[in-house]
Amino acid sequence: MSKEFKPPRGFRDFPPEIMILRKNLISRLENVFKRYGFDPLDTPAVEYWETLSGKYGEEAENRLIWRFKDPWSDKDYALRYDLTVPLARFISSHLDIQMPFKRYQIGPVWRHEEPQKGRYREFYQCDADIVGSPYPEADAEMINLIIDAVKSLGFESGFEVKINDRRLLSGIFEQELNIKSPLTIYRIIDKLDKIGIDNVRKELSEKLDKDVVEKIVGLINMKGKPDEILENIDKSFGKNVLVKNAYNHLNEMLELVNNKDKVVVDLSLVRGLDYYTGPIYEVVLKEPKIGSISGGGRYDNLAGIFSGKQLPATGGSIGIERIIDAGLELGIYTLDKKTYTDIQLIFIGQDTFRYAWNVANLLRSNGYNVKIDLNRSKEDQQRKKANKLNIPLFIFIGKKEEETKSVTIYNTKTNERINVNLNDIIDKIRNLI
Amino acid sequence: MSKEFKPPRGFRDFPPEIMILRKNLISRLENVFKRYGFDPLDTPAVEYWETLSGKYGEEAENRLIWRFKDPWSDKDYALRYDLTVPLARFISSHLDIQMPFKRYQIGPVWRHEEPQKGRYREFYQCDADIVGSPYPEADAEMINLIIDAVKSLGFESGFEVKINDRRLLSGIFEQELNIKSPLTIYRIIDKLDKIGIDNVRKELSEKLDKDVVEKIVGLINMKGKPDEILENIDKSFGKNVLVKNAYNHLNEMLELVNNKDKVVVDLSLVRGLDYYTGPIYEVVLKEPKIGSISGGGRYDNLAGIFSGKQLPATGGSIGIERIIDAGLELGIYTLDKKTYTDIQLIFIGQDTFRYAWNVANLLRSNGYNVKIDLNRSKEDQQRKKANKLNIPLFIFIGKKEEETKSVTIYNTKTNERINVNLNDIIDKIRNLI
Repeated sequence: MSKEFKPPRGFRDFPPEIMILRKNLISRLENVFKRYGFDPLDTPAVEYWETLSGKYGEEAENRLIWRFKDPWSDKDYALRYDLTVPLARFISSHLDIQMPFKRYQIGPVWRHEEPQKGRYREFYQCDADIVGSPYPEADAEMINLIIDAVKSLGFESGFEVKINDRRLLSGIFEQELNIKSPLTIYRIIDKLDKIGIDNVRKELSEKLDKDVVEKIVGLINMKGKPDEILENIDKSFGKNVLVKNAYNHLNEMLELVNNKDKVVVDLSLVRGLDYYTGPIYEVVLKEPKIGSISGGGRYDNLAGIFSGKQLPATGGSIGIERIIDAGLELGIYTLDKKTYTDIQLIFIGQDTFRYAWNVANLLRSNGYNVKIDLNRSKEDQQRKKANKLNIPLFIFIGKKEEETKSVTIYNTKTNERINVNLNDIIDKIRNLI
Repeated sequence: MSKEFKPPRGFRDFPPEIMILRKNLISRLENVFKRYGFDPLDTPAVEYWETLSGKYGEEAENRLIWRFKDPWSDKDYALRYDLTVPLARFISSHLDIQMPFKRYQIGPVWRHEEPQKGRYREFYQCDADIVGSPYPEADAEMINLIIDAVKSLGFESGFEVKINDRRLLSGIFEQELNIKSPLTIYRIIDKLDKIGIDNVRKELSEKLDKDVVEKIVGLINMKGKPDEILENIDKSFGKNVLVKNAYNHLNEMLELVNNKDKVVVDLSLVRGLDYYTGPIYEVVLKEPKIGSISGGGRYDNLAGIFSGKQLPATGGSIGIERIIDAGLELGIYTLDKKTYTDIQLIFIGQDTFRYAWNVANLLRSNGYNVKIDLNRSKEDQQRKKANKLNIPLFIFIGKKEEETKSVTIYNTKTNERINVNLNDIIDKIRNLI
C-alpha cells in the first residue's frame, strides 16, 4: 500500500481552518438569500446522463461532464455539471409548486477540467434563481441580492456590476450590423478584458469589414453610467424592436436597483452560456484581477425545457471559490480561526481530571464549545496545543481550584487571569466570549 | 424529450420544506459536535478506487461501491462509500496535525443498494471521530456526545444506548467458549432483535453443541444495567486477559458517562463492521422499531492504515435519514415550515408597488426575511400565496398607508392588525418575530 494517499487530482480536502472559513462565508450568503425570500433546494449529485445531455454545448458534452455507466442496469449516469439544469428538471416534476419559485442551492458540481490554480474538478456553486416571473422587478431583485451578497462577503466597495442585455446584442450586432455568425464575434468581444481593445480590433478585422469593426469597437468602448449609455443606445438603435424592449426592461429594472452607482452598462459583456434571453450581469472586483466573482441573467427558455412549458426565469451565481482566493489575497479573510472551541480546560495533574471533566460538562451544557485533554498529557502540553489552535479562553484547574470549588480563567487576548467560584463561572464567561 | 425527468432511482430531490427541516436538524447536530470540541473536515465526493478498495468487505467491493473509470486517464474512481476511510486517508497525509484530532463531517455518501423504503443510493452521514487517543475518556466523550446529539434532535427520552466491547466478544466467545468461526455466530446473534431468542437458539444449534448454545443464550440474555452485567462477566470470565482489559476500560469509561441510566450492557450487540477493536455502542429508539439511529466504537487499526502508523481512534455516526423518518412518524418533526420568509409585503394596487418595494428594502437591510410579489398579482393572490407558505407576518400597503407613510401589520397567528408609522416599523416587528 502506498505510503501517501492523496485526494484525486483536481479534488481537495478541506481541513478545519479552511472549512471554518468556508462555512462562515456560506452562512453569510445563505442569510442574504433568505432575506430576499429564497428557500433552499437540494438535488442529487448524480443525474441520469440524458438529463444533462444536450444542455451545455459540445465541450461539456464530450469532455467536461463526468459520465459513467452502471454495469448492472447499463444506465448512463453523470455527476451534476451545474445547479441550473437540475433546477429545471426539478421544476418539470413539480409544476404545481408556487410561482415564482425562489430557490437557492449551494453545493459541489463536477467538471472534468484540466486542474490548475483556481480551477478544480469539484467546486462549489452558490445559486439563487427566480422561476416564473417575466418582469424587471425579478431581475432587479437578483441584482440587489447579488450586490448585498458581495458586500456581506466583505467586499464593501472595490467592485462593479456590469450589465447588458441579450436583446441589445441580438438587436444591434445581429440585426442592425448584420453580423452573420454572431457567436464567433461574441467570443472575440468576450476576451476584451484579457487581450485589450487593440487585439479585439485585430481579431474582428479578420472576420468583418473595417467599418463594422469600428462600429463594434465604438459600441464596446461605450461602457459607463446606465442612464447615459442607454440613452445613447436608444438614440442610435431605438427603432429596433429588440433594442427597444431591452431599453424599457433595463430602465424599469434599474429604477429598482439600490446601488445604481455600482452598476455600469457594458456592451462588451456577453457571458459564455447562450441560454440567456434578457438582462445579463457580472460582478468584477477592481483588485485582484481574477475575472468575475458573480454572474447571471434572465433565461426564459431553459427552466421549462423538460416540461415543454415555457417558464420565464432569472438567476445568478456567486463564485465562492474565486471569492475565497481573492479574499485571502486581499487579507479580507484569514485562516487564523483553527477551531470552533471557545474554552480549553487545562488540568494540572491527572488527579484533578475528574473535577475538570465536570467543569467541561457544565460549560458544554450551557452551550460553550469546550476541549479537554483526552491523552493524559502534562499541563504544558495541554497549554501548547491550545495555544496553537488560538483558543481564546483557558480554564486552569489544579488542586487549589478543586479544594475551593473554583476555576482560574485565563483570557489569552488580555492576559488577564481571574479565580472564579464554580457558581459564578457561567456569568463570568458570558462576559468574556 | 420525455415529459417528466426524475432524479435517478434511489436518489432524491429535497424541496424547501424538507430542506428547512434537514438543515435545522443538521445545525443542531453541528452545535453539539462543536460543544464537544470537534471541528469540521470535508473530503471530496470522488476518491481513487484504490483508496476505497479492500476496506469494506466483499459485498461493498463487488457491488455497493459506485465505481467508474475516467476514459481519458484510465484511472479508476469511486464515489465515497462512507466518511471513515476518507478520514483515514486525510490523516495519512496530515500526520503533523494536532492529536487527538477531533473532526466532524456531515455529507452524502453513495451506495449502489437496491432502493427501498428508508434506503437510498445517496444519503447523509453525520460522523464525529477522535483520532489519537487510546483512553476510555475519549470513548466516554463519544458516548456523551451521542446522547446529547440524540436529545438535541428532540428524542429526550425513549431511547437507550447499548454498549458492548469487541474484546468481550473475542475473549468470551472465541477464547473461553472456543468458537471456531465466530463471524458466522456473531451474524446469528446480530439478528436477535429481528428474529427473537428462540430462532437464534435454533440457528445456533445448527452450528454448535447444545451446551455452548445454552451458554451463548444465557450471555446474550444478560442485557441490563452496566454495573451488574459487568460484575457478572468479571466473575465468570475475569481471568481472561481480553475480558479483563475490556472490563477495566468499560468501567473507566462508564465512570465518565453522564446519562448512565440510558446505558445498558448488551452482549448481543456485535455491529456489522469488523474493524472495531474496543467498546462499541448503538442507540436504539423504543418507538418506532427502525433499528439503530446511531452507532460507533473504537477502531485502533484503521485510522493509520494508509500511513502504516498505528493510530488509536474512536468515533460514531448519527443516522440522520432514519432519525428524520422516525421524527416525522412520531410527530416530533413536521414539514409545516415551508419557507424561511418572516414577512410578506402585500401591496394593494400596482401603483403602491414602489412604496412597498422600499419597505421591503428597509426590512431586509434590518435582517428580516421578506417576500414581495414579483408577478404584478392582485392583492388576494398575494395573500393566498403567503397563506399557503405559512408566512407569519403580512404587511399590507395601500394608498392610505403610502399617504400616511405607514404600514398595516397583520399577525397571522393572533389575527391582530395594527397600523404603524414607517419610523417605528423595525421596533414593532422586533417584538412580533
